[in-house]
Amino acid sequence: MTEQIRFQLSEDQLPKAWYNILADLPFEVPPLLHPATGEPTRLPPPLFCDALIEQEETRERYVAIPEPVREVYRLWRPTPLVRARRLERILDTPAHIYYKYEGVSPPGSHKPNTAVAQAFYSKEAGVKRLTTETGAGQWGSALAFACNLFGMTCKVYMVKISYHQKPYRRVMMETWGADVTPSPSQETQAGRAILEKDPGSLGSLGIAISEAVEVAATHDDTKYSLGSVLNHVLLHQTIIGEEARLQMEMAGEAPDVVIGCVGGGSNFAGLAFPFLRDRLTNGASVRFVAAESTACPSMTRGVYAYDYGDTAHLAPIAKMDTLGHTFVPAGIHAGGLRYHGMAPIVSALHRHGYIEPVAFPQLRVFEAAVLFARAEGIIAAPETAHAIRAVIDEAIAAREVGGRRVILFNFSGHGHFDMAAYESYFAGELEDYEYPAEKVREALKDLPRVS
Amino acid sequence: MTEQIRFQLSEDQLPKAWYNILADLPFEVPPLLHPATGEPTRLPPPLFCDALIEQEETRERYVAIPEPVREVYRLWRPTPLVRARRLERILDTPAHIYYKYEGVSPPGSHKPNTAVAQAFYSKEAGVKRLTTETGAGQWGSALAFACNLFGMTCKVYMVKISYHQKPYRRVMMETWGADVTPSPSQETQAGRAILEKDPGSLGSLGIAISEAVEVAATHDDTKYSLGSVLNHVLLHQTIIGEEARLQMEMAGEAPDVVIGCVGGGSNFAGLAFPFLRDRLTNGASVRFVAAESTACPSMTRGVYAYDYGDTAHLAPIAKMDTLGHTFVPAGIHAGGLRYHGMAPIVSALHRHGYIEPVAFPQLRVFEAAVLFARAEGIIAAPETAHAIRAVIDEAIAAREVGGRRVILFNFSGHGHFDMAAYESYFAGELEDYEYPAEKVREALKDLPRVS
Repeated sequence: MTEQIRFQLSEDQLPKAWYNILADLPFEVPPLLHPATGEPTRLPPPLFCDALIEQEETRERYVAIPEPVREVYRLWRPTPLVRARRLERILDTPAHIYYKYEGVSPPGSHKPNTAVAQAFYSKEAGVKRLTTETGAGQWGSALAFACNLFGMTCKVYMVKISYHQKPYRRVMMETWGADVTPSPSQETQAGRAILEKDPGSLGSLGIAISEAVEVAATHDDTKYSLGSVLNHVLLHQTIIGEEARLQMEMAGEAPDVVIGCVGGGSNFAGLAFPFLRDRLTNGASVRFVAAESTACPSMTRGVYAYDYGDTAHLAPIAKMDTLGHTFVPAGIHAGGLRYHGMAPIVSALHRHGYIEPVAFPQLRVFEAAVLFARAEGIIAAPETAHAIRAVIDEAIAAREVGGRRVILFNFSGHGHFDMAAYESYFAGELEDYEYPAEKVREALKDLPRVS
Repeated sequence: MTEQIRFQLSEDQLPKAWYNILADLPFEVPPLLHPATGEPTRLPPPLFCDALIEQEETRERYVAIPEPVREVYRLWRPTPLVRARRLERILDTPAHIYYKYEGVSPPGSHKPNTAVAQAFYSKEAGVKRLTTETGAGQWGSALAFACNLFGMTCKVYMVKISYHQKPYRRVMMETWGADVTPSPSQETQAGRAILEKDPGSLGSLGIAISEAVEVAATHDDTKYSLGSVLNHVLLHQTIIGEEARLQMEMAGEAPDVVIGCVGGGSNFAGLAFPFLRDRLTNGASVRFVAAESTACPSMTRGVYAYDYGDTAHLAPIAKMDTLGHTFVPAGIHAGGLRYHGMAPIVSALHRHGYIEPVAFPQLRVFEAAVLFARAEGIIAAPETAHAIRAVIDEAIAAREVGGRRVILFNFSGHGHFDMAAYESYFAGELEDYEYPAEKVREALKDLPRVS
């Protein structure tokens, strides 16, 4: 065997702890503030169980992964690290390209890493049901999967237009026993209020969040679950980077650049933070590139300010890279990158110079995805394809300067439920979107006023 | 760690040879016969390259896997062997249940094991293009994937109704660069003849085969590729069982029963034959169960006779379990199990008492698939779900007799492109199909007359 391709950890090498980067940051991440009073606040107990509220704030460097969570992880983890040698050859690059393949999870993405943890802690706290919102369905299917394994009910409010247009993720959730409701619904005050004004409403993520939060807030046995942005979500995702560090050691290399796509920031953080620890604590020379969409460029074009996470102003406000919570991005196929804000920790790292954001229009993203599929065989989710675009650009740059460069990226999810997007691309029907400067200017007028 | 779940081979444990069961059979498998003369014949050189024609006949016990094929295999192989401990607990069975998970391949099934090999040998022989037919698209996408990696063109004739109703497998093929044409088409005599009589024809697998074969027969640079049934296809699939044997050794167990679903027989054979070698050569006590559909029960209700493989009577005839080549099964969702015949080697093993066939109606099959998805998290293709039904029945039987039983089955493919079938199941719209005795009786009148 001349060239190793896959670096596979054994089951007993599955990491035993998540990494909490708050322990090592040389700066403070501004606290959450109460949306009405502007005072520092915790996550609200009606919505989250105590263990997760504590994980949101802890300064412990490592948080032990409970054994029942590790048992579920072992259904698909450790995930493979793969050297993309065929892509390297096609690009004729001296760069070494590695990808961490999270698409092997049952729901097909990195999302269950936190869904399983959240379901476990909620179950331990006596919670009977978790609610959440979902757009295209990647997060909803991860939570449905996790709740089913712990014997809990999962209630998903799915944006109505997606519910009807993209039924297969919904069926996947139902296969795992979830109760999926098109939003806006008649089940909540928030939903009824929308339907009264607009009976034909096709829904939005903001409305679906409001419904899911309302149900959690008004039922003692029910909590709410969020799939990105929050500190504890990023914490759970660090299992990706902890495994990848061991696998890069097996490969005998260290990354010069670590790349992930960013919507709320969790898959990027999950891979990057354990390598960022090496930079923060040992001075390792490694760059971090976050790839976003030009249609929703919160890092490259947003402001760093306190903003609401939800349209109903129910959740605490956070200081983050944001385009304004009233900003509605264009309908790109990478639905997971359409969030107006960015995880507070990722935003702070960006503003302190640790992360280089880069934004791509969707045509160049699909071009990269097709190139990757033909080189390596794997078809990426449109979100993941943003990372691939950044990887290819880095590899081409390495060729041009003639230098060795080790690139590691997070292949956050497969595209089996996104073939309609590829179909549109091949049919020449995909549009690029300019940076929506005017819309962002308007949305930024709605930021909360805090000192 | 108390309970190991996954048994993972390292990259350098990837087997170096396929296993050819013809070397060890205590009986002769009847030869292929020419469809017109009835004389023993080889596979026709206009359709297949020499290396594959030789592999169809060889009596060598092991056939070395060429290094370029192993290099491609390593993109996803060795595949995991997983102990289904959650399913065991839910069934409250003393049985140990293991599954070999072939769904991790880029096209999502076992099919590329042979597609890659066929593409390699054809490329070596100077072939520029491979043609094939596909129904729902699982085989077509595997061949598209393989041809792309070896820089060949792939021409897929896709049954017209599937082309329009199931576009996502088609888009997957196109993502890998294949040329997908709805069949019947104007591109071939066979297609034009059908369209002249019936311009609105929705196509059939038989018509699509005729188109693919015609193109290969009439173009020097083009060969035809088949995804099951033939000896060399079964040979390539034995990589599954060779890996599984090593992994069962890691688990410290030997299977008492090996189970796979059967359409043409290749995924079943791929897992079973290396374990059958242990029975043939060392007297190992192991049972083999082949799970088919009651809608197309070639093993449980067919006859063992020479029959045509294709409706146009172009290919050699083979002695096999068959329902008659003019038999058209009901439109079950397990499209891969709708072939009228069975691989000649599998048929012969059945008739010599080595294989126990069992047939299931589709509702019990989907019931098993949903139970498995909720227990283990993985959503099965409808074909694979037939094997799962057999596994669950074996595990329940083990509970009832109170005995230890080690069950191993081939999880041949995931169901990400089959969610419409699950949707129909949940909606109560799926039908069971009785054994179509009258239709089979009619079809069996069309068997070729041979001595």
